[in-house]
Amino acid sequence: MLLKISNKEIKERQNKFRDQLSERKIDASILFSTTDIFYLTNFMFRPSERPIAFFTDSNQESHLFVPALEKTHAEEYAVVNHVHSYPEYPGTEHPMNILKAVLLESGFNNLSVGMDSTGYSSAKGYTGPEITELMDFNNIETIKGLVEKLRYIKSSNEIELIKESARWGNLAHTLLVEYTKAGKREMEIEGRATYEATQMMFKTLGNGYKPYGNPAHAFYRGQIGPHSAFPHSQNQNALIEKGFNVVSQAACDVWGYKSELERTMFIEEASIEQEKYFNHMYNAQEIAFEKIKPGIAASEVEREVQRYFNENGLSENVRHHTGHNMGLLNHEAPFFDLGDHTILKEGMVFSVEPGVYVEGLGAFRHSDTVVVTDAGMELITYYPRDFESLII
Amino acid sequence: MLLKISNKEIKERQNKFRDQLSERKIDASILFSTTDIFYLTNFMFRPSERPIAFFTDSNQESHLFVPALEKTHAEEYAVVNHVHSYPEYPGTEHPMNILKAVLLESGFNNLSVGMDSTGYSSAKGYTGPEITELMDFNNIETIKGLVEKLRYIKSSNEIELIKESARWGNLAHTLLVEYTKAGKREMEIEGRATYEATQMMFKTLGNGYKPYGNPAHAFYRGQIGPHSAFPHSQNQNALIEKGFNVVSQAACDVWGYKSELERTMFIEEASIEQEKYFNHMYNAQEIAFEKIKPGIAASEVEREVQRYFNENGLSENVRHHTGHNMGLLNHEAPFFDLGDHTILKEGMVFSVEPGVYVEGLGAFRHSDTVVVTDAGMELITYYPRDFESLII
Repeated sequence: MLLKISNKEIKERQNKFRDQLSERKIDASILFSTTDIFYLTNFMFRPSERPIAFFTDSNQESHLFVPALEKTHAEEYAVVNHVHSYPEYPGTEHPMNILKAVLLESGFNNLSVGMDSTGYSSAKGYTGPEITELMDFNNIETIKGLVEKLRYIKSSNEIELIKESARWGNLAHTLLVEYTKAGKREMEIEGRATYEATQMMFKTLGNGYKPYGNPAHAFYRGQIGPHSAFPHSQNQNALIEKGFNVVSQAACDVWGYKSELERTMFIEEASIEQEKYFNHMYNAQEIAFEKIKPGIAASEVEREVQRYFNENGLSENVRHHTGHNMGLLNHEAPFFDLGDHTILKEGMVFSVEPGVYVEGLGAFRHSDTVVVTDAGMELITYYPRDFESLII
Repeated sequence: MLLKISNKEIKERQNKFRDQLSERKIDASILFSTTDIFYLTNFMFRPSERPIAFFTDSNQESHLFVPALEKTHAEEYAVVNHVHSYPEYPGTEHPMNILKAVLLESGFNNLSVGMDSTGYSSAKGYTGPEITELMDFNNIETIKGLVEKLRYIKSSNEIELIKESARWGNLAHTLLVEYTKAGKREMEIEGRATYEATQMMFKTLGNGYKPYGNPAHAFYRGQIGPHSAFPHSQNQNALIEKGFNVVSQAACDVWGYKSELERTMFIEEASIEQEKYFNHMYNAQEIAFEKIKPGIAASEVEREVQRYFNENGLSENVRHHTGHNMGLLNHEAPFFDLGDHTILKEGMVFSVEPGVYVEGLGAFRHSDTVVVTDAGMELITYYPRDFESLII
């Protein structure tokens, strides 16, 4: 079983990228975004103090500029024509000066160059000059967001990887539910479900599987009982109690691709009030599912969801928009948001997760991963969504 | 057991930060760095499409600007005087416009303002204007790196948290070694050691422990056999074979604080050649340990290590500098690097990890975490380092 992006697909991506540069009459490009570099080269870089850059020259050849640490690794794994390296950061000569020399060798000073950013940045101790402070270019165009927009629409192969991610997220989630009992604590349940799902995943897929991230995992992230009213909480190792509502999260990286599965569940029993909020959340998610199709704006989905919440007096209980695109990152643009008017297209992959938050009671949010199809959408996650199935 | 940074210490940090602003004759500040914001407020933010900002006004009051999603969470956890929030990103009004309104209310247009950056940035779908495009300030000073430099030197409490991290990294590492056998695969060994160490850690520490990151974990990260010659590799779920050298890594987050433990080990037996490279790496690490003390430049440590490698004909086998500072991030400045002349001070915490890489054979690298003391340094990690102990 081969769960990867082929070199052929990588080259097609590079061609599309170059076509975009040509359309903008740009001769060459420099990219510093590590996610975009992985997308265009299959080379996964762990960001640290050491900078990385990808560039295409005026002969349409692709180059990777990496620390010496990564030279043989890049030569083995990166789908590029040339690998350049610098000794170390900060080193006796700053890597940006060495990049400058490499760019001058490729004649960049006489070119019109597209850049996603004028320099590298990382929180992990890196500082340095912008490349534009070190050398002149004939012309500079910003291409920030260009590769990100190519990433919006997934190929059939990318969708297969996301479906594979959902499959193993589902196993982790199933085990999470199995081990969740009143009297147990968060970490024990999460740790066991994550460990077992990961082991089974590797045993099932064999060595065709590379996570480039985290294998199958499932957790609550502190969203247990009343504390779940904090939507993006941190692990509290909370005690599970009868009658609590909890919000799970399960996912899995497959060649860097992600899916998202979240369920609102009740420990042994649910009150009338809990059922009421659950049903509103469920209905809102259904409304989004019905609305999603190619040709409409992302904001239209959100408008329908917000209309439902407003009509039911829940606008004070809403804390976030309905969903986000995903792929190599867990959150990507575009968003199901009142302010995002991006037109939906076939092959876009979104989370759908309208949430209702009630202080003192907790959170009500499912998240499902969906792909926009020619006619509407298809659910990629498939764990049961109905109330009865989620009293655990 | 209370493993945290107290509100008192947070306030002391804020006071130090304000003193630095005063020295620079800056009235107020705006920070966008999420690590620095956690350091100054105890509020851990999961970066996504939604921006965050911290600011101090001319009355020396501290403010946090967060998405609605995080409002109650911030009110509960953040050590600040005021929490402001915006509905959503991108929303019908861009969050940066709302931040502008909040800043104008605090009179920022008439102030000299220090900023770590002119705007928020995130790879996860965020785009937006710089705050400096939206409003005028009396004067703008860059304070990029200011909080990072405060973070260089750890308090006794921070050092305790790092020591706690090392303790549980040691357990994970011990279990990793116990489960590493010829014929086993990477993920099974790592998964079991990580799961068990994490469970024991929570059972031992009780609810005083919050990771704000990943609890105890240990892994090989693909550094198994000849593939270990790629120093920053990715998980390959590789098969362990007799005679391989492997490089482990164990760590643990405690209230966000990290330590680093890595060992070069041999499966059942080592060749004369493997022992030779091991000894050179061991000697280089000893040289660094002896050199580290307050008052010398970080580069002096690196110079001694490089001299040893050069004298022994190993300069071609070196791929990275000897170490990095750490704390809330796994890599932070300053570095044991020929180009980093930062003077060592008591309370700085570094990795010491000179490495030797031999293509076809593999990697030779230990990493230990050390703290600079008044007289020299103290080892925080304590797993055996000698050759005999590491034939497993």
